[in-house]
Amino acid sequence: MTRDFLADLAGVLDAPGLLLPGQDLTRYEREWRGRYESRALAVARPADVAMLSALVECCLRHGVAMVPQGGNTGLVGGAVACGERRELLISLERLRAVRKLDSDSACLTVEAGCTLGATTRVAAAQGWRLPLALASGDSATIGGVLATNAGGNETIRFGNARHMVLGLEAVLADGSIWRGLSPLRKDNAGYDLAQLLVGSEGTLGIITAASLALKPLPRQREVAWLAVPSPASALAVLRRVRQAVGETITAFEVMPALAIEFALAHRPGARCPVDPQAPWHVLLDCDCAAAGQWLGEAVLECLEAECAAENVTDVVVAQSQAQADAFWQIRESISDAQKAGGVSLKHDISVPIAAIPGFIDQTLARLRDRVPGIRPCVFGHFGDGNLHFNLTQPREMAAEAFRAREEEINELVFSSVLAVGGSIAAEHGIGLLRKGWMAKSADPAALFAMQRIKRALDPLGLMNPGKVLEVDYYSSASAGDICD
Amino acid sequence: MTRDFLADLAGVLDAPGLLLPGQDLTRYEREWRGRYESRALAVARPADVAMLSALVECCLRHGVAMVPQGGNTGLVGGAVACGERRELLISLERLRAVRKLDSDSACLTVEAGCTLGATTRVAAAQGWRLPLALASGDSATIGGVLATNAGGNETIRFGNARHMVLGLEAVLADGSIWRGLSPLRKDNAGYDLAQLLVGSEGTLGIITAASLALKPLPRQREVAWLAVPSPASALAVLRRVRQAVGETITAFEVMPALAIEFALAHRPGARCPVDPQAPWHVLLDCDCAAAGQWLGEAVLECLEAECAAENVTDVVVAQSQAQADAFWQIRESISDAQKAGGVSLKHDISVPIAAIPGFIDQTLARLRDRVPGIRPCVFGHFGDGNLHFNLTQPREMAAEAFRAREEEINELVFSSVLAVGGSIAAEHGIGLLRKGWMAKSADPAALFAMQRIKRALDPLGLMNPGKVLEVDYYSSASAGDICD
Repeated sequence: MTRDFLADLAGVLDAPGLLLPGQDLTRYEREWRGRYESRALAVARPADVAMLSALVECCLRHGVAMVPQGGNTGLVGGAVACGERRELLISLERLRAVRKLDSDSACLTVEAGCTLGATTRVAAAQGWRLPLALASGDSATIGGVLATNAGGNETIRFGNARHMVLGLEAVLADGSIWRGLSPLRKDNAGYDLAQLLVGSEGTLGIITAASLALKPLPRQREVAWLAVPSPASALAVLRRVRQAVGETITAFEVMPALAIEFALAHRPGARCPVDPQAPWHVLLDCDCAAAGQWLGEAVLECLEAECAAENVTDVVVAQSQAQADAFWQIRESISDAQKAGGVSLKHDISVPIAAIPGFIDQTLARLRDRVPGIRPCVFGHFGDGNLHFNLTQPREMAAEAFRAREEEINELVFSSVLAVGGSIAAEHGIGLLRKGWMAKSADPAALFAMQRIKRALDPLGLMNPGKVLEVDYYSSASAGDICD
Repeated sequence: MTRDFLADLAGVLDAPGLLLPGQDLTRYEREWRGRYESRALAVARPADVAMLSALVECCLRHGVAMVPQGGNTGLVGGAVACGERRELLISLERLRAVRKLDSDSACLTVEAGCTLGATTRVAAAQGWRLPLALASGDSATIGGVLATNAGGNETIRFGNARHMVLGLEAVLADGSIWRGLSPLRKDNAGYDLAQLLVGSEGTLGIITAASLALKPLPRQREVAWLAVPSPASALAVLRRVRQAVGETITAFEVMPALAIEFALAHRPGARCPVDPQAPWHVLLDCDCAAAGQWLGEAVLECLEAECAAENVTDVVVAQSQAQADAFWQIRESISDAQKAGGVSLKHDISVPIAAIPGFIDQTLARLRDRVPGIRPCVFGHFGDGNLHFNLTQPREMAAEAFRAREEEINELVFSSVLAVGGSIAAEHGIGLLRKGWMAKSADPAALFAMQRIKRALDPLGLMNPGKVLEVDYYSSASAGDICD
């Protein structure tokens, strides 16, 4: 049966389009951190949307499940096979065309396999900004970024990936091609399928291209590194800067001393602009597309006032692009740097911004009670409420002993998040990793509606099965559902 | 049977919650322009979400269809009953609480029955802007604005209504209450149901409250009225202003001389800032939340350059808020003012911005060939590609003779729109009015997916039936679909 399927598949793909298990499939089958790894039936690499459509129809005929994959940079196991040798991995890496840059509509249309970094550079070369900034930008692809509704550093100003989407092209679960690319800012002809596909993690269809809204490139920019005594002080600074320079705030990141310690150890030669032992650090990035000289002064005025109010104990403003980049390199290296501290249990959460200081204090106090010596490295996108609530093992504890407490620690963190109205999956998505927590914590009416949508659009359950939602097909799918 | 239903209904509603046919129901049953009017079984006015949920369950038990209604300001017949005395109109007008303004999260949560205008004022009183501007703002409600994904004047900068939505509360078609209000900027726990409900025109559920993202209020503003020779000149101006002051452009509206003529006749005392007979007029509105004095100079510099390039023949910059308001009053009165010219056939369309000048020229030339003396009044949101392609009857033609050619004229306009990749329903939605054109012009894969979603979430077909989509329930709904 597998042989019949592979023969059929070879018929719809070109030679570079099919990689079989005899070949080295590691880079598709192994998630980049090595946390997930399993065997696929094969790896398909369609050259274009028509080939992808034919391939999906082939899978439908044979009842073979499909796992779409972009840059394989995800953190929740959303792009890995989960049934050993029973699923086809579909890589979009050959769909890399830049279809069109329409400057009058401020819209860039690219294929799913383009990396975010490459797409950003195509836009910038024509004077435009694609306002989405991720540490993994040079590996993450547009298809993956949209399928997971990625967030990143600039969400406080520009929203997450879904805010950039004007239109999509996709192959739906029945193999049909939806040609929905469009530079239009207003189009109310029916339900917004693009917004439904964005963030659905490949469970409803496979995005093949996207029309993305662009913004003008900045002409003024101020990047500042602040030492602050506490998250409450960071909040006070955010309030004042927002009052004064409003929409120019592109990023407002926080980092504790431990994160700086990890980052400096990880990047020899890196230097913290302020005393690295300051308990908390803020990286503030403001910019404006209008030319002029006013932004620097306006930002500085805020920071001076916050120094006077003792919410800021030290400030360094970047004097060059290179210095701004150096600030950001420290921030971006924290995730990797944390490995040196041993096992880390990571939680990608959001809480309402006003709740952040209390949430951090109380949750850490409870954690320290429960696991003496635990080393919290809570950092991230303070300005949009998204914290990477990462917990490094105590120095004296064995790695395995700490790992054994993962469920207990998750329970403590996530129940604190839910108690303040937060989200257990802020920007990384659900995938396999958070499916259980999602089932436990989602609003029941919403969960039921999602399951119905999944069954309606993917009646055979072949699109990235087992990710995001557990859907029971057997109790309610009918022949009518599947065949009509 | 109707009597049983009404008795049951009375049991779930309070006294002010049920209006029966003996009473004057005109303001609910009659669309404000009088274009649609039909009889409802009754009008329900639930006092809160629990009462609405009970009422939806009551309708499900009796198989009664429901038509949700906001401010009844729609233009496509989306909120009118269409089966005489067979549908229940549900007005959300009693759900008017302001639930919460969370300044740190820049989020305002209000109930569906609040008008857009009232909501805007609540935000402004706390220093925040709800960036959605419609002429009907003081009647249109948040529920209606979201159900139709309203656009308006400021879409070029802030996007349409869906861009403001952080979370929703809604009663779904099975009567369940989805409690999805949230100030979070990042929440990737499953499919984005909020974005699916927004723009679905009440066919998938009834929005009862929304969490809306706010922006800071402007501190600098420049409003200018320009006379320009042609749409091509308007495009040149837009390009230059966008280059210079980027994201500060809040509105970029165009109006032809005929629109100005109508507006001035309609508003005695109104004065056009430039020669009203200039062939085209542009209303440019720029603002910035950062304090300062730089915006005026930057805008003026652009306009001077465009004067030199002969793309602008005259400019008046508003010298006060009152003058800016007066400019906008002319713009906002065009729709009503057009009535004085006789019958108008109106088309709410979008086209890619670069295509606007050619599209206007060519479509009007073909229309003039076909209907000599036709008076085009094409105006609107040039900066986001959305034109109100309105056509007033020739002076010498009888109203009925012009009206009789509606289908022929729609065919000409809409096929021109589709030929340049535009939309036949930009910001007003589909409702009853454009359902036929939607069925003809939508991408087949998308249309099929929408029908499946509709059946999955509203298996009995009782939510605003006949609007947006024609869905065939009988060929494919199964008992499993309906009961599970």
